[in-house]
Amino acid sequence: MPYVNIKITREGGPEGAGPSAEQKAELIKGTTDLLVKVLNKSPATTFVVIDEVNLDDWGVGGLPVVDYRKALNG
Amino acid sequence: MPYVNIKITREGGPEGAGPSAEQKAELIKGTTDLLVKVLNKSPATTFVVIDEVNLDDWGVGGLPVVDYRKALNG
Amino acid sequence: MPYVNIKITREGGPEGAGPSAEQKAELIKGTTDLLVKVLNKSPATTFVVIDEVNLDDWGVGGLPVVDYRKALNG
Amino acid sequence: MPYVNIKITREGGPEGAGPSAEQKAELIKGTTDLLVKVLNKSPATTFVVIDEVNLDDWGVGGLPVVDYRKALNG
Amino acid sequence: MPYVNIKITREGGPEGAGPSAEQKAELIKGTTDLLVKVLNKSPATTFVVIDEVNLDDWGVGGLPVVDYRKALNG
Amino acid sequence: MPYVNIKITREGGPEGAGPSAEQKAELIKGTTDLLVKVLNKSPATTFVVIDEVNLDDWGVGGLPVVDYRKALNG
Repeated sequence: MPYVNIKITREGGPEGAGPSAEQKAELIKGTTDLLVKVLNKSPATTFVVIDEVNLDDWGVGGLPVVDYRKALNG
Repeated sequence: MPYVNIKITREGGPEGAGPSAEQKAELIKGTTDLLVKVLNKSPATTFVVIDEVNLDDWGVGGLPVVDYRKALNG
Repeated sequence: MPYVNIKITREGGPEGAGPSAEQKAELIKGTTDLLVKVLNKSPATTFVVIDEVNLDDWGVGGLPVVDYRKALNG
Repeated sequence: MPYVNIKITREGGPEGAGPSAEQKAELIKGTTDLLVKVLNKSPATTFVVIDEVNLDDWGVGGLPVVDYRKALNG
Repeated sequence: MPYVNIKITREGGPEGAGPSAEQKAELIKGTTDLLVKVLNKSPATTFVVIDEVNLDDWGVGGLPVVDYRKALNG
Repeated sequence: MPYVNIKITREGGPEGAGPSAEQKAELIKGTTDLLVKVLNKSPATTFVVIDEVNLDDWGVGGLPVVDYRKALNG
């Protein structure tokens, strides 16, 4: 009966605008397989929900992520 | 002092693109009424937040939901 | 394919230490019935997860909830 | 190792369509500084994720937020 | 910069009271490896948070999970 | 109408078992003040919910946080 929520920044992927549907399908399959393998959960009652988050909306190190990366590489 | 988060797939509704504003208002009212009835919570401090999730972003049975339904009905 | 998360303060209920199992079952049933009625969702793929939150861990009005209520009634 | 999620209604800001990137950066910085000050957390492992929620999708008092405000001011 | 939240029922594991620390470590490693493989994410900025949920607090099919399983097998 | 969720590891604080009630009250006040200052939100409709997460249940770098810190310092 697991519920998994994966939050990622909206970037990368084939067009630079976020993961492709195929990549998301890989995340869904991989996460579900992991829960089956480690905890013997049933896939039919395993939900995986992916949230893509705009870069402006994700902060780390006290900065929006784009500024944080610039500061690291500065 | 409840906080309720309802996540649903973005589909159905009057135009097939997700629930209407009226349907969302029904969810908000119904959930709030339930918390008042069962736990005597105050509506004024009951928040309900609805998230619509794209079909690509919701997995069940190890598959994106559209593929899962096809597999079930295959 | 809905997922509902209900967060409530850990208080009230038959012993003052939070809702009883019966009250939680009512919340689960009521929320699921609402999603069936309003959006025609399938109960078998409707998850409801309840989180009880300690009073120290819930703030409103800039105060922990117990202090907030005292201030309101003060 | 904190993770902070801030959910706000999508409104206000310089064009009335939600907070500006600068306002979001202030939220990220302010929240991170607070966790450093109060709990001595490391900024490099402090994530802040902001979700803007459409007004239709936020309920309080059993009503969508716009209707709730009208009712209060009615 | 991913954040993953895994919610599972508190059951199973070596003593029937939930997954062991080793099983949780496997979930953390497996999820992180998946995000590295599929999306080339950096492990150092990948958080995984596991929530164990009491059986009373998880509903499916309109019932608490224990009652739901009984009904299915009835 | 903001809702803020702060997840932190259960450690530190006056007895090493997590933040004190006073520290949590500071987080609640600081977060609320920030939302008032930056976005002019009303404190009375600002919720802050704090979750303390056991060290076993938090992963970073593909490891439970305690192992991750050992590996960094190793």
